[in-house]
Amino acid sequence: MTPQVLTSVAPLRDRIDEARRAGLEVGLVPTMGALHAGHVRLIEEARSACGCVVVSIFVNPLQFDRTDDLDRYPRTLQADLGMCADAGVDVVFAPTVEEMYPTAAECTVEVGRIADHLCGRHRPGHFRGIATIVLKLLQIVRPDRVYFGEKDAQQLAVIRHLVLDFNVPVHVEGVPTVRDIDGVALSSRNERLSPEERVLARSLHSALSEAGRHISAGERDPGRVTAAAGLQLPQDGRLRLEYLEVVDPEHIQPVTQIEGPVLVAGALWVGSTRLIDNLMCSPSAPPAVATPPGN
Amino acid sequence: MTPQVLTSVAPLRDRIDEARRAGLEVGLVPTMGALHAGHVRLIEEARSACGCVVVSIFVNPLQFDRTDDLDRYPRTLQADLGMCADAGVDVVFAPTVEEMYPTAAECTVEVGRIADHLCGRHRPGHFRGIATIVLKLLQIVRPDRVYFGEKDAQQLAVIRHLVLDFNVPVHVEGVPTVRDIDGVALSSRNERLSPEERVLARSLHSALSEAGRHISAGERDPGRVTAAAGLQLPQDGRLRLEYLEVVDPEHIQPVTQIEGPVLVAGALWVGSTRLIDNLMCSPSAPPAVATPPGN
Repeated sequence: MTPQVLTSVAPLRDRIDEARRAGLEVGLVPTMGALHAGHVRLIEEARSACGCVVVSIFVNPLQFDRTDDLDRYPRTLQADLGMCADAGVDVVFAPTVEEMYPTAAECTVEVGRIADHLCGRHRPGHFRGIATIVLKLLQIVRPDRVYFGEKDAQQLAVIRHLVLDFNVPVHVEGVPTVRDIDGVALSSRNERLSPEERVLARSLHSALSEAGRHISAGERDPGRVTAAAGLQLPQDGRLRLEYLEVVDPEHIQPVTQIEGPVLVAGALWVGSTRLIDNLMCSPSAPPAVATPPGN
Repeated sequence: MTPQVLTSVAPLRDRIDEARRAGLEVGLVPTMGALHAGHVRLIEEARSACGCVVVSIFVNPLQFDRTDDLDRYPRTLQADLGMCADAGVDVVFAPTVEEMYPTAAECTVEVGRIADHLCGRHRPGHFRGIATIVLKLLQIVRPDRVYFGEKDAQQLAVIRHLVLDFNVPVHVEGVPTVRDIDGVALSSRNERLSPEERVLARSLHSALSEAGRHISAGERDPGRVTAAAGLQLPQDGRLRLEYLEVVDPEHIQPVTQIEGPVLVAGALWVGSTRLIDNLMCSPSAPPAVATPPGN
C-alpha cells in the first residue's frame, strides 16, 4: 500500500485527527530520509504497536553544525517512499524547510549538561537542533509513541529528558541498532564510503567490542578501557578518532569508575565521513574477595 | 460550584480527557495565584468560549531572578479557590514544585531577541522560566485555548512565539488589562503597597498615558516621547524607574521612528515593589505637509 504523502502541517493534522477519531494509536518515526534497514526496524516496531504509523522525512538544517555536511546529506525521497510502502507506513510527512521554519525562531530548546560530551561536545548546537525539531514534530503529530534508534544513544537520552522535562505526553521507544554482517552499524552516512573506507569503518565497532570485553572481564577504569579499545583502530591516515568515551547512559556524563551499566560511545572519521556507534556494557559481578583470616 | 482541585499531573490529565471525550473545549488560565479581578476577567473569557475551564495556580521558581521576590510573592490559595468557585472554574491545578520539577531539568526553552528588552533585559532568565513552565502546562493540559493578560505584554508576545515556533496546537488569547478606577493596572504585587505607595503607583499609568498623548499628537521620536512621559513621575525617593521604552509589539525591539502601532512599556519600583504596565499607542495620520511653491 502506498503511504499518503503530506508536505504541510494542516492536512497532516487533519489526517492524524481522523486516525485518532477512528480509535487508532499513532506512532511516529522521525527520520532525515535516506532510509535503510535500521529505519525499517523502527517502522516495524511502530507498525506492531500502532494502528497509524507516520514517518517524517526532514533534513533539519538546525541540527547541522557544518554547511557542507548538510549539503552532502543524502536525499533519496523516491527510494524512501518505496521503503515506506513496503514497510506498511500509513502517512509520510515530508515538509519543506519553509514549512517547518516559516519565521525566524524566537524559541528553541536549550539542552543542558547532557550535551556536554560525545557528539554534543563536537557538534555545537546539534542537540538544540534535534530537541527543537523533535518537539515540533511531537506537537504537529501528537503521537502516542515515538521511535528512535539506539545507535544515536545521546540523541535518545536527550529526547527522553525532553519529554520528561516538558511533560510531553508520548512514550519514547528506543530500538536496538541494526548492523551489517561485519558489525558496522547501519547509517545513512555509510552510503558515502568508498569500498576501502567501508572496510576501515569496521574498526569502530571492533574498538567498542574490545571495550565491552575489557569491562566484562572486570576492568573498572574507563581510561584503561578506552586505551585498549583504541588499539583496535588501524594506523591509517584516513581514520581519525573524534571521541571514544565511557559515560553513564542516562545523563551522558563520564564515569570515573565502572560500577554499573555504562555506554561506550565513539565517533570516527573515515575519510570525509563521520560515523558514530556505541555499545551498552555491564561489568560482570565483582570477583569475590577472600577475606584475609583474622579480619 | 466548587472547582475540583488537583495537585498531580496524572489525575489532572484523566479529568481533562474526560472533558474532551464529552466534547468540551478546554480553556487554560495559567496563574501564580493571588487572584484579582484581572484574573477573573481571563477566567470569564475562558468561560465564555470553553466548556471546561482549568486554572493553574503555581508560583514558578524558574521565572524568578530574585529569591526575595519569590519568597515574598503572595500566596492566598483559599481566597483563590473562592474566586475560582465564584467565577465558575471547573478544575484548579495547584501542583507542588516537586510535581512540576521532579528532576533537575536538562531541557529548558531558550528565548531569543524578544527577551533582550523591557523585563527580559532586567530579569535574567525570567522569560526562559515563563516559556518553560507555560510549555509544560500546555503539554499537561493540552488546552484548545490559553489565556494571558495584556498587562504582561512581553510575556504574551513570548508565548505567541513559543506556540508558533514549536507548533503547539493551541489558540493564544490576549485579554485587555483590568485597571482600578485611578488607572493602576491590577497586579498581585499591588497587595504589597502601603497606602502612600499605592498613590505613587498611579504615576506609571500617568506616564504611559502621557506617552500615548504625544504619539497621538504626532511625535515620531521615541526618545522625546519617553522624556515627556518621564516628567509625569514625581520626584520622590520611593520611586525608581527601571525602564520606559517604545518597542514594536510583536518582536519587542526598540523602534527608531514611530510609524505604526507601538507598545510603550514601563517598569517602576515603588518602594520595594516592582510594578509593570504598558499601553498600545498608534500615531495619528501624519499631518499633511504643504509643498512649497516652485518645488
